[in-house]
Amino acid sequence: MDYQKILDTIYKEMSYRDVKGKVASYIPELAKIDRRKFGMHVYCGTNDHFHFGASDEKFSIQSISKVFTLSMAMQIMGESLWDRVSVEPSGDPFNSLTQLEKESGIPRNPFINAGALVISDILVDQLKDPKKELLEFVRKITGEDDIDYDMNIASSEKSTGYRNVALVNYIKALGNIKCDVEPIVDFYFHQCSLAMSCRQLAKAFMIFANRGKILENGTKILKPKTVKRINALMQTCGFYDEAGEFSFQVGLPGKSGVGGGIVAIHPDNYSVAVWSPILNEKGNSELGMKALERFTTLTGVSVF
Amino acid sequence: MDYQKILDTIYKEMSYRDVKGKVASYIPELAKIDRRKFGMHVYCGTNDHFHFGASDEKFSIQSISKVFTLSMAMQIMGESLWDRVSVEPSGDPFNSLTQLEKESGIPRNPFINAGALVISDILVDQLKDPKKELLEFVRKITGEDDIDYDMNIASSEKSTGYRNVALVNYIKALGNIKCDVEPIVDFYFHQCSLAMSCRQLAKAFMIFANRGKILENGTKILKPKTVKRINALMQTCGFYDEAGEFSFQVGLPGKSGVGGGIVAIHPDNYSVAVWSPILNEKGNSELGMKALERFTTLTGVSVF
Amino acid sequence: MDYQKILDTIYKEMSYRDVKGKVASYIPELAKIDRRKFGMHVYCGTNDHFHFGASDEKFSIQSISKVFTLSMAMQIMGESLWDRVSVEPSGDPFNSLTQLEKESGIPRNPFINAGALVISDILVDQLKDPKKELLEFVRKITGEDDIDYDMNIASSEKSTGYRNVALVNYIKALGNIKCDVEPIVDFYFHQCSLAMSCRQLAKAFMIFANRGKILENGTKILKPKTVKRINALMQTCGFYDEAGEFSFQVGLPGKSGVGGGIVAIHPDNYSVAVWSPILNEKGNSELGMKALERFTTLTGVSVF
Amino acid sequence: MDYQKILDTIYKEMSYRDVKGKVASYIPELAKIDRRKFGMHVYCGTNDHFHFGASDEKFSIQSISKVFTLSMAMQIMGESLWDRVSVEPSGDPFNSLTQLEKESGIPRNPFINAGALVISDILVDQLKDPKKELLEFVRKITGEDDIDYDMNIASSEKSTGYRNVALVNYIKALGNIKCDVEPIVDFYFHQCSLAMSCRQLAKAFMIFANRGKILENGTKILKPKTVKRINALMQTCGFYDEAGEFSFQVGLPGKSGVGGGIVAIHPDNYSVAVWSPILNEKGNSELGMKALERFTTLTGVSVF
Repeated sequence: MDYQKILDTIYKEMSYRDVKGKVASYIPELAKIDRRKFGMHVYCGTNDHFHFGASDEKFSIQSISKVFTLSMAMQIMGESLWDRVSVEPSGDPFNSLTQLEKESGIPRNPFINAGALVISDILVDQLKDPKKELLEFVRKITGEDDIDYDMNIASSEKSTGYRNVALVNYIKALGNIKCDVEPIVDFYFHQCSLAMSCRQLAKAFMIFANRGKILENGTKILKPKTVKRINALMQTCGFYDEAGEFSFQVGLPGKSGVGGGIVAIHPDNYSVAVWSPILNEKGNSELGMKALERFTTLTGVSVF
Repeated sequence: MDYQKILDTIYKEMSYRDVKGKVASYIPELAKIDRRKFGMHVYCGTNDHFHFGASDEKFSIQSISKVFTLSMAMQIMGESLWDRVSVEPSGDPFNSLTQLEKESGIPRNPFINAGALVISDILVDQLKDPKKELLEFVRKITGEDDIDYDMNIASSEKSTGYRNVALVNYIKALGNIKCDVEPIVDFYFHQCSLAMSCRQLAKAFMIFANRGKILENGTKILKPKTVKRINALMQTCGFYDEAGEFSFQVGLPGKSGVGGGIVAIHPDNYSVAVWSPILNEKGNSELGMKALERFTTLTGVSVF
Repeated sequence: MDYQKILDTIYKEMSYRDVKGKVASYIPELAKIDRRKFGMHVYCGTNDHFHFGASDEKFSIQSISKVFTLSMAMQIMGESLWDRVSVEPSGDPFNSLTQLEKESGIPRNPFINAGALVISDILVDQLKDPKKELLEFVRKITGEDDIDYDMNIASSEKSTGYRNVALVNYIKALGNIKCDVEPIVDFYFHQCSLAMSCRQLAKAFMIFANRGKILENGTKILKPKTVKRINALMQTCGFYDEAGEFSFQVGLPGKSGVGGGIVAIHPDNYSVAVWSPILNEKGNSELGMKALERFTTLTGVSVF
Repeated sequence: MDYQKILDTIYKEMSYRDVKGKVASYIPELAKIDRRKFGMHVYCGTNDHFHFGASDEKFSIQSISKVFTLSMAMQIMGESLWDRVSVEPSGDPFNSLTQLEKESGIPRNPFINAGALVISDILVDQLKDPKKELLEFVRKITGEDDIDYDMNIASSEKSTGYRNVALVNYIKALGNIKCDVEPIVDFYFHQCSLAMSCRQLAKAFMIFANRGKILENGTKILKPKTVKRINALMQTCGFYDEAGEFSFQVGLPGKSGVGGGIVAIHPDNYSVAVWSPILNEKGNSELGMKALERFTTLTGVSVF
């Protein structure tokens, strides 16, 4: 398959001018992003990678980081992790607090904020220096040592993150948070601030397309069973209230972030990352969704 | 892959004695089923099929029928169907009526009852004799002319189906039902009463594993794009409040029914049906879920 | 107290021109009402009654009828009525169906539609000819034999009442409806169509201000304890989602209807009815609310 | 009316042995209370007061304090207060967070926790030393200088109050909290810890039965209109999810607390406080509810 040609077609066909959404504005640092940015990167093998546009420019990966922290928590906790968080799509974001109340503080899945905060609690509880270890994890699976937190983003998140502080307190009241609130949200706001490029994200997510091994050197990071589960979760829960739409249009397991990034993988095949900061109404990259839909249409391959 | 050996292993390992759930009892006809029934059937090609146990015995397919009616509605309506029903997992069954109110009578997906009833409305509106045409559709894709409705089940559903009658009236009040209530629920209760065996279900679902074509004769029933979408919907919404769990454990698109049947497919590969009437708390066949989990573990292949 | 002077002041101060709402339009018959209509009537004793404007013109009393059917049901069932319906304010109309599900089909109070439909079920179950007996009840407590149903309104309600049909089916599925759906909603749509004037409503409600006895002839209709309870219910639940506001602004037990009528009583003192068909956002008569607020301010007396 | 005789009858008829509930246990200090405690105190005039049992023993008034802080906030803010908090019964406690989301952070009424926390925010924002001024307010209206916070209770609330901290953060995220979270919850936990006896509570609440003036010296504390509104709010919202039941059974405006205290008033007539720490399922004093029901039955007088 000539991936570069497919990418070139997409780059020619699509532009930030075709989409009408807005960039995320809940924190000033995200609102500053140039809405014209557009990049895409595909990895199929160590030396088989293809790209266009701003594929090498770093941006705030935001919720995409939840896949990394989930991977770390699964390494540490094994199956017992699922006593603390469930694996079902969340449906209505509106009722998520009601849902927590009814289900004794067990979040519906690790990708909604409530679930990611329980994962934070686990990592803060189990690791000596969770912020440092998360960086090490991401650097290891990409082989790129310059990946780091964006401290402006992290502190900006912190100063406006009342809703997440509310969530942690609420889950603690329901008995599913062990640590103090402060270090949990501090870790969470840091993970959201991770800055990575499409190239780095595509490289990192190759472990989910490669049964848990780093492509370049074959180092085993996750068990194949763990990878299968993370992929299943990305498929059903990776896109907030638009998981069905993404599954329907694109047909690949993936994860998006409000920074405008989306990563998706085709098991045993490829990993693809796209970035355009303009968001649709559901909070996913509008151009990113279209580009991936076009990508699976032009390649003629999806998991379905 | 030696599918028969894998099936034999599963049949040896598992028994109705290992599960503690109950058979469906909301209508007397379903409650009468022998809880010891257990059968499984796999299709990979016209002459490649494998099975064990009660794989040739007919049972009430119930909600599995929603995949057939959705297929028919997609043939008729094309993309405009999605103005009437959405494609997102429903999350909390509890709030489904609240969800309808908030989302102007557009059900979350075609596999929750609200969505299936809107599909019924479409078929009743568009077809001369929807009950006859549904039978013809199922007979055609299986090549088996003895498939029929179980009239005891159908009339039993009708006499206790107040909740579904409530749903249709409610959606009609919200403007998303065109026809009269009576023929819609009559059609719906008939489709639920369809009686089919594991063998027949596996054969029928081969069109979803075979890009829309009947395996035996290559007749094109659905467009590949339509099939891709139905498979995506089965993956995210096929198991009530347990879609995530099934995706997580089994990793295949599938659909279950309260009669104890489950069908799942692996695109371009196989279709598998299993039947055991004992249900877990979420209303899915307990033994069926386990058998399919074991099946994808032993074959080592899933979509993820 | 010079009630006539107070009424004259209100009539001078207020006009349909001051309010911006709309008349009810969900059925054509209600939408036809002249929005300029405005009348008020106060009863303090048999010959002490005061009024202004269209106080003698009949209008559709709609939900005000729920107080009459509740009175009849309490006469028949005594305390056992409260096993079928609760006495708490409903809060959020949005979640009323969710509430029914959680609380086993027991509606929150007899004035929300779900509760009034359970009351209808009781009357249809217990009375030979409930429509006739309701008319007799209202004629008896007012001494006016010309009170009747408006058949145009009744049949119009019926042709659009899918939401109420949905509710009855839903509650029946939950086990709290005994009779068939059809006669229940037929009775319900008739009670809503009762046509009465402010004068007649004020006269009828004197039984709630007079400890259960008809003012003119002292005939005992309800026990004082029953009256106390109905008054308490009108205070906390009489105004849909605006019960608190009415209690807060007016401070009297009362009941409103979407026809634009409101009746309120001051125990051992007076009964007052007002009519203006222009509704506020919550579905209560905008001018009627203001007139009653002014009335309790000018008289200087409320229950609080 | 011989109030003492009525109180004596109640004291003879009722005992902690007749009720099966439990004392509040969410903080250890409340769980230690002797469940046999039972006292009642009625005030009708400066020298007309009647009582039985532990009427002079102090206990934790908990949510009853919300009436005092609301009074202070109404003095300061006037009508503009109602831009920050609504006046409707809350219905379902379960959905209170969902309600906040839908209604832009405006709590349903000042007596649910969300509303009381917004009132705390107002007092913390407007007063130099809100804890001191609340004490002064209560001491002034009772004329008793020994009323104080119970510091054990206050610090115990603080160490387990994650749910309230969650609420404040959540409302702050929705834009209806001005101050920092910490001083708001500190003030809130202090107000809940106020320790008063039935005698003191009955005396304090005489301002609501006496049109805003202190009984003993005629000092005007609140406007009559303010008092009317507070009474209306106590009637519709004073008893959590049991406001309708209390209105229905007792028929007086009142307020309860999880410490087992209840105060109710009859405008222009009397104020009555009762204490028994055994709570019913809804969190209100079981014996207290029964005693007040018996009290209005024996006096034959309620607002309805």
